[in-house]
Amino acid sequence: MKPVFQIQRRVEFYETDMAGIVHFSNFFRFMEACEHAFLRSLDHELHGMLDGLETGWPRVHATCDYRAPARFGDLLDVRLFIDEVRKRSVRYRFEVAKDETLVAEGSIAAAHVAITADGIKAVPLPEVLKLKLESMTCPS
Amino acid sequence: MKPVFQIQRRVEFYETDMAGIVHFSNFFRFMEACEHAFLRSLDHELHGMLDGLETGWPRVHATCDYRAPARFGDLLDVRLFIDEVRKRSVRYRFEVAKDETLVAEGSIAAAHVAITADGIKAVPLPEVLKLKLESMTCPS
Amino acid sequence: MKPVFQIQRRVEFYETDMAGIVHFSNFFRFMEACEHAFLRSLDHELHGMLDGLETGWPRVHATCDYRAPARFGDLLDVRLFIDEVRKRSVRYRFEVAKDETLVAEGSIAAAHVAITADGIKAVPLPEVLKLKLESMTCPS
Amino acid sequence: MKPVFQIQRRVEFYETDMAGIVHFSNFFRFMEACEHAFLRSLDHELHGMLDGLETGWPRVHATCDYRAPARFGDLLDVRLFIDEVRKRSVRYRFEVAKDETLVAEGSIAAAHVAITADGIKAVPLPEVLKLKLESMTCPS
Repeated sequence: MKPVFQIQRRVEFYETDMAGIVHFSNFFRFMEACEHAFLRSLDHELHGMLDGLETGWPRVHATCDYRAPARFGDLLDVRLFIDEVRKRSVRYRFEVAKDETLVAEGSIAAAHVAITADGIKAVPLPEVLKLKLESMTCPS
Repeated sequence: MKPVFQIQRRVEFYETDMAGIVHFSNFFRFMEACEHAFLRSLDHELHGMLDGLETGWPRVHATCDYRAPARFGDLLDVRLFIDEVRKRSVRYRFEVAKDETLVAEGSIAAAHVAITADGIKAVPLPEVLKLKLESMTCPS
Repeated sequence: MKPVFQIQRRVEFYETDMAGIVHFSNFFRFMEACEHAFLRSLDHELHGMLDGLETGWPRVHATCDYRAPARFGDLLDVRLFIDEVRKRSVRYRFEVAKDETLVAEGSIAAAHVAITADGIKAVPLPEVLKLKLESMTCPS
Repeated sequence: MKPVFQIQRRVEFYETDMAGIVHFSNFFRFMEACEHAFLRSLDHELHGMLDGLETGWPRVHATCDYRAPARFGDLLDVRLFIDEVRKRSVRYRFEVAKDETLVAEGSIAAAHVAITADGIKAVPLPEVLKLKLESMTCPS
């Protein structure tokens, strides 16, 4: 399946651990970096405003399956797919690959929230963004 | 359910992000820190030897559900449960809580491997460790 | 010289790199964690208020000399000394040791700032805090 | 002064902290990433071999002065200069800038070591690399 968006990342030394491979927690950072680059490509302000309130995308769920190790200096492709667009949340799916080798597969579900005086509350996605994302949905 | 093991962690400044909360990737580090403290408590060398080969526990799967934000200075309880012990892998389950509030729930599945000249290959858990872990299994 | 304050930290797996030792950038996190625990011990709110403005302590300088490697599972002592207290800033000095071995020495200079609508500006330290810190100053 | 080498980096969300700016420890990672990209550009294997021993570049000193905050999404230029080439070590100097604004200045001194059965010991830089680096030296 063709990804909706993708980035390339070189594995940095500080992303490895004493086992000589990328620490598993860093794959969640690779996925988020891809998500943010994707939203930037849509001209969507990650931290926008809605009715005078600051908005954001806290994560509600994240998962990753590790298929093969990634090492220092590896050039990784991080591919984004859109699994599901809901009224107040989005679920992305990701593949991380090195050349022809699938290194990891994961997903992130993010809620769209506004920051109010009382805390945060889920709010609908901006309509323009929602339509764009829906048109790119590709459930696995 | 009573956890098999638990640690406390104070949230550090560098673990927060610009949304003012703990970055979601750090919960995987909290879970792993708890797993390692648990193995240490069993007198199990995390990076041991088997038939002259170095062994380790690469992750094959990790997942987390975020229930409530954690903030700088929060004192978190990280609780470990053992979901399943297999011949060459273990699946742990975790809860992260702040006082009475459940902050996150997650799981990590780790394979037991030996590092050979040709790469890594899954090897059976040491028998003593396997028996200990099995006696503490508590599937959700 | 007797430190003003100290904490202990166990080196976590995710703090190591492929060279099998703690990544050098993490020593700055150890030092900051010690500084924050110190301010907490003085009942000083790290992110306080001054005349209705939020305050903070951005770093203006940081340095570290590495004397010996630290490894996964090592129990490190992080010791804080106060080098200099100025009107709007403090300079701390740190030692990181493993048992009798000095692992690293470093320093952090932090400005005291208020966050205004126009950005941040340096503001005087709260008088009570300033007096406490001055009484504990121990230049190297 | 014209840098010897430079890279660009987009500030990622996970590199920010609750003060809304890049955490100060991450600038050391930016500098190291630039150093490694530089060595890669010289076709120098970061973790090479010398007389059958694995070699590496542990840091002996690192320092950074913070001039202006960097924020999520900022595109940073990281510029490398060579301060001094010695028999068994190199000292680099770095500038981090956002457009015309200098964000940070720092330096890293790295020793060239071989990993022996007894630990690590400093060893001379490979002659070819030493000559290349010397020809690019630009003390501040």
